[in-house]
Formats: sequence, C-alpha cells, structure tokens
Amino acid sequence: MTDKEVVTEANQRFYRAFETLDLEQMRGAWDEDQAVTCVHPGWPLIEGRGEVLQSWANIFNNTMVMQFTITVASVMVEGDWAWVVCTEGLRSVVDGKVTEGQIEATNIFRKRGEQWLLVHHHGSPVM
Amino acid sequence: MTDKEVVTEANQRFYRAFETLDLEQMRGAWDEDQAVTCVHPGWPLIEGRGEVLQSWANIFNNTMVMQFTITVASVMVEGDWAWVVCTEGLRSVVDGKVTEGQIEATNIFRKRGEQWLLVHHHGSPVM
Repeated sequence: MTDKEVVTEANQRFYRAFETLDLEQMRGAWDEDQAVTCVHPGWPLIEGRGEVLQSWANIFNNTMVMQFTITVASVMVEGDWAWVVCTEGLRSVVDGKVTEGQIEATNIFRKRGEQWLLVHHHGSPVM
Repeated sequence: MTDKEVVTEANQRFYRAFETLDLEQMRGAWDEDQAVTCVHPGWPLIEGRGEVLQSWANIFNNTMVMQFTITVASVMVEGDWAWVVCTEGLRSVVDGKVTEGQIEATNIFRKRGEQWLLVHHHGSPVM
C-alpha cells in the first residue's frame, strides 16, 4: 500500500469509530499529544486532548445513529504528517431527530509507529 | 525568525489580502498548484485554483468591508508544508449588512522558494 492509501484507511477508521459511538474507539483514533484540536460543525474550536474527548462523549451521549459516506477530495503525506480533505455524507439521529446533510472536513494525522492518528479534525456544515 | 514565526506571518498576510478585497493580492497568497482546495463558511468544498479564485472574486464583489482579528491556536511546520489553526474574529459589511461573528479556520501552506502559499483554507461558522 502507498502512504496515501494507508492514510486514506486511517481516515476511514476515524469515521468507523465515529459510527460506533464508542468513546474507546474514538480515543484510539486520536494522537496521545495533549495539543490536539477539533472543530465540530458549528462549534467553536476545542483545544486539548481531554476537552476533545469530552466533546465526543457529549456527542455520543445524544446520538442514536450516525452513518457516513465519505468522499475523499485530496490526501497529502509529508514525513510523519498527513492531511485529508473530504466530504461527509451524513445521516444521523440526534435527540430523536433524523438529519441528513453534508459536512466538509479537514483531518490532519501524525504517524506514531505504524499508526496514523488524528491531531486535528475540522468539520463544517454545508448550509 | 523561526519557521513557525514565518508561517504565522504568511497566515497574517492571507488575512490582510482578504481585508483588501483585492483579487490580485488574494491570488498571490495561493499556491500556483491547480489542486488547491477551499471551504468558505457554510459552503461546499471548492476544488481547483480557477474555481477557488472565482469564489474569492464573488465574495469580494458583494463585500464592502472585511476586518479580521486573528487568534492563532497552533502552527505546525514539517518540511515544506505547514498548517495553522486559528480563530477569526470578523466584522464585515456584505450586501450592505453589518455582521460580526467568529469563524474557525484551518489553513494549510506549502513553501515555494522563500514564500509560504496557501493550498487549503477551511473556514467554518460558529453558530
């Protein structure tokens, strides 16, 4: 597999973890570095691993179903860093309400050993 | 100056170009690569240098005033690539309507000679 294929697979793993709504799987998708950052659609920037993981816990607590169809626009790999630009086709059930929509995402990864882990996720609503 | 300081300055130059509402200045802030990408707040992903520059032309045509206060959260430099996560405090006059708000942004740069140029801009509204 090429570096780009491996990073594309890591990107898919992040969305599979998101779909499980399982905080342990989401925790495993993120780098251990304390300085990770995250922007959920419509939210202000969240800084720090503890705060980022807490935000996922909050989302998972209110979400019953989350299904993604990911269209990758670009993948760049440079040394131990990589970034993916993709569009999330999203179907979710949050607080009992079904939502379908489109989210644009920028995901940045760092290589740790053989794993590519998230250091930044930025999702934004298409309105 | 450190690499991070130089990239932070390139990030500031992008926002100064944005404030001028001058398409030539904005053109100069972007990499010549055709594969650049851009997400404006609430917009779908735009792919390709021509399409991205056209989107700036459309924004500038409808905008009378654009003023930013930038708070940088993180800067990473790896070889000839760099990325900045920042919050844009924004005051704008678009179609005659004054708006103040907050935008979260991820900006990715590539080094070309001595210049750091944008290859990806992702802005999202804080709602």
